[in-house]
Amino acid sequence: MAKAKKQPRPKAVTPKGFRDYFGEEVTQRSHMLGQIADVYHHYGFDALESSAVETVEALGKFLPDVDRPNEGVFAWQEADENDKGDWMALRYDLTAPLARVYAQHRNDLPSPYRRYAMGPVWRNEKPGPGRYRQFYQCDADTVGTASMAADAEICMMLSDTLERVGIPRGDYLVRVNNRKVLNGVLEAMGLAEDDPKRDDVLRTIDKFDKVGEAGVRELLTKGRLDASGAFIDGVGLGDAQADPVIAFLTSKAADVAGTMANLHNAVGDSKVGVEGINELEQIGELLAAGGYGDDQVLIDPSIVRGLGYYTGPVFEAELTFEILDEKGRKRQFGSVSGGGRYDGLVKRFTGQEVPAVGVSIGVDRLLAALREKGRLAATPTGPVVVTVMDRARMADYQAMVAELRNAGIRAEVYLGNPKNFGNQLKYADKRNSPIAVIEGGEEKERGVVQIKDLRVGTLVSQSSSDNQKWAENLQQKTVDRSSLVSSVSEMLKRGSPRLDAEGNIVDASGSLLLPKEYLL
Amino acid sequence: MAKAKKQPRPKAVTPKGFRDYFGEEVTQRSHMLGQIADVYHHYGFDALESSAVETVEALGKFLPDVDRPNEGVFAWQEADENDKGDWMALRYDLTAPLARVYAQHRNDLPSPYRRYAMGPVWRNEKPGPGRYRQFYQCDADTVGTASMAADAEICMMLSDTLERVGIPRGDYLVRVNNRKVLNGVLEAMGLAEDDPKRDDVLRTIDKFDKVGEAGVRELLTKGRLDASGAFIDGVGLGDAQADPVIAFLTSKAADVAGTMANLHNAVGDSKVGVEGINELEQIGELLAAGGYGDDQVLIDPSIVRGLGYYTGPVFEAELTFEILDEKGRKRQFGSVSGGGRYDGLVKRFTGQEVPAVGVSIGVDRLLAALREKGRLAATPTGPVVVTVMDRARMADYQAMVAELRNAGIRAEVYLGNPKNFGNQLKYADKRNSPIAVIEGGEEKERGVVQIKDLRVGTLVSQSSSDNQKWAENLQQKTVDRSSLVSSVSEMLKRGSPRLDAEGNIVDASGSLLLPKEYLL
Repeated sequence: MAKAKKQPRPKAVTPKGFRDYFGEEVTQRSHMLGQIADVYHHYGFDALESSAVETVEALGKFLPDVDRPNEGVFAWQEADENDKGDWMALRYDLTAPLARVYAQHRNDLPSPYRRYAMGPVWRNEKPGPGRYRQFYQCDADTVGTASMAADAEICMMLSDTLERVGIPRGDYLVRVNNRKVLNGVLEAMGLAEDDPKRDDVLRTIDKFDKVGEAGVRELLTKGRLDASGAFIDGVGLGDAQADPVIAFLTSKAADVAGTMANLHNAVGDSKVGVEGINELEQIGELLAAGGYGDDQVLIDPSIVRGLGYYTGPVFEAELTFEILDEKGRKRQFGSVSGGGRYDGLVKRFTGQEVPAVGVSIGVDRLLAALREKGRLAATPTGPVVVTVMDRARMADYQAMVAELRNAGIRAEVYLGNPKNFGNQLKYADKRNSPIAVIEGGEEKERGVVQIKDLRVGTLVSQSSSDNQKWAENLQQKTVDRSSLVSSVSEMLKRGSPRLDAEGNIVDASGSLLLPKEYLL
Repeated sequence: MAKAKKQPRPKAVTPKGFRDYFGEEVTQRSHMLGQIADVYHHYGFDALESSAVETVEALGKFLPDVDRPNEGVFAWQEADENDKGDWMALRYDLTAPLARVYAQHRNDLPSPYRRYAMGPVWRNEKPGPGRYRQFYQCDADTVGTASMAADAEICMMLSDTLERVGIPRGDYLVRVNNRKVLNGVLEAMGLAEDDPKRDDVLRTIDKFDKVGEAGVRELLTKGRLDASGAFIDGVGLGDAQADPVIAFLTSKAADVAGTMANLHNAVGDSKVGVEGINELEQIGELLAAGGYGDDQVLIDPSIVRGLGYYTGPVFEAELTFEILDEKGRKRQFGSVSGGGRYDGLVKRFTGQEVPAVGVSIGVDRLLAALREKGRLAATPTGPVVVTVMDRARMADYQAMVAELRNAGIRAEVYLGNPKNFGNQLKYADKRNSPIAVIEGGEEKERGVVQIKDLRVGTLVSQSSSDNQKWAENLQQKTVDRSSLVSSVSEMLKRGSPRLDAEGNIVDASGSLLLPKEYLL
């Protein structure tokens, strides 16, 4: 074999827009995915895992939120003899592969087909802060039924899921709206389905959050001077023509019945509009029958996000608690999940319309929310580290670590160069180890080991240097070699020692370890 | 927006060489991955999840088992202004990304760094039966230590992992060999490091399983007539020169001490060979100290697979029980995991040699083995299906299903067209439902529901048609609406009714449900 030419060293960098996840970042996510899968499974949804790769043809041009249908995916051409292989691409979401799978396997799948899927998706987009080109989605969809019971079920399941992962009632809200009601509003305004002004109206509705009722009215009619002093052209509708939009956006009343009455006003006698309202009423009844209250799932015509993509009911789950943004301002955490009813995805393949409804949870955002709220284990616990005092007695240390593991304690032996003991403790610190085990030659002779509580370190730094002595006492214990496991186990159980409000040293549960009188 | 031109319908097919996984295939794998992660974590390994995408430059040309370093990956060029973007590729294993991550983050990572990773990898290879272009790997590696304690630890962990996922002691064996011993053998034969005959000898050693001791000797020397009558040229070594290879391949003795003595004979005074034997001895001592016996991890010079790729100790986990192959012949299930010590991966990036050792488990093969042995839940349990007798009373059915779920029972309401009740039962059958719940108008009036044990169906088919009556009795129960949850729960607990050896009907635990005398 000819020797390869000397090449410059490759750069060790994560590709642009991608990132690595370490330790707890990985395990917390997989724990959450497990919890979500559990709820989905409980509702009768079955798992589906399709491959990351699809043909570009099968993926289609259905990228939501994106105006450039041909961009946005990572794609390549398969090599074959004539270099004319198929184009392949990484999936950009979990819905397009579902449509392909359903079209391909529909004769073998139960109908309706409830499935959930979780995994990474890829977007070939300009990365930004906190915006990566690979991220997780976690979807549940019901394919093959037009029944509103499917939509209601997904709302209930979303509510259950949020509570299951640790968002208590009151800290979230699933809001439900219906694209058909909006279509009814457009009809009531006298805008035909192909009227280009429909798009203008949709864009204006999206600004309701920012400019309010009066602002929307101005934008729909004669135009508006914005905060910077620039004039924004209006859509040019008459004042009366704008009324249904305003009625729609402000239709939320104190109770569902009131909201429904307002919506009826907004859509007038538009057939599709009335159908949409009936669907919302059905969903409301089913939610009530399932025992879900307005504090969990709410019919709310003010949510408009995603209305463009969906064809019937739409849902959005928001976290309602406040966090501080990067500039220290309070703001609501916002949306962590969205979904709705969509048609046409399967039809692309089969020619037959197949009604479907689904939801997608932004797992990484939800994790971020739980971190913000301190609902994820704050300090992950590293392994107990058995230090190496005598390189020739590795087998002794190995035996200790095996005993600890067999007792269910996460433990490891130090595998680096044991010469410098300080390095071993630095290593244990980096590993977040709660405890180090030490057995030098002297201890070995006496049949004892020392166990050192590494969590006391922070305590020491909180106290005067005069208190080093008791800290050391609390920190280090000499125990019989034969009681290694029980002593480590006990020390683990007492948790991180800390100072209480009075200045005593207590264990994690608040039990007294050392009264303040003993402290200098 | 201009209307898109009518295009031919896309084909709904999984791309060639890829596949979809449904239901239990997904959940069983994720359950197993969870078990493996648990063991790895217990040993002090931390999770790492890098992205599926790496730069081609960072991935390098380290594809193991493949002679074509430039092929084998799915790659594409990033688009930029000048169409001169970086080349990106899907990772082909989890080791190459580890090398990149370690080189990139080495100052922040503990040293040594124990990490585990699990996830799909992609190979751009010709797919074959059971060979897919996306599959799961599950790796653990320790980077930054040359200590044999790291190698021993990985062998113990592999043994623990196999037992944890359900392979009992006696049904698996982790075998350990050392590439350095083989290098010592080559040295003892007088073959210098750049002697082209080294490759010939390696290739011949790989045939030991097939041709045995005498066959290897012939192939190393004068050549051999194979079973088909064709003559295979020999390597052309002298008989004495072939001796060390034969001594090496046949070195396995009744105990470790005997094996070691044989290996010393094989390597003579080769320095690297003796070093390799010492390493094996150290591993043996550490295994013994950890309490691992020869029936779990065995020093075995007869394993040669992977010797080419690694630089020190190598391991292979084999399942030793027999299965029937596709032609009905008995054969051992074979290897499910391999690993060893390797150098140079990190050096590519940093110029510094970093010793590392790792193991990779073939998750899909391991799952297949457990399925073969019937160690995975045979019949997955679908949800309880609440049928719909009256479309207008969906809220009633929704309430039932919510009650069942709140009691921890997997349940769903039928969401298809309820007109044809037979279709609902067919659906429940496809879903593997244990129980269907029925509430028609009459039941509603009387305040009762019917619960139907769908698992009795197979029982009926085992009996004469005259026994329909009792089957129906056993199958269907009318209970108070208020005791829906407790009755379903009880029926679930009794499991699938079956005929026992005497012909009585018993529940899953063997308790009598109906004596045979009652059967016609």
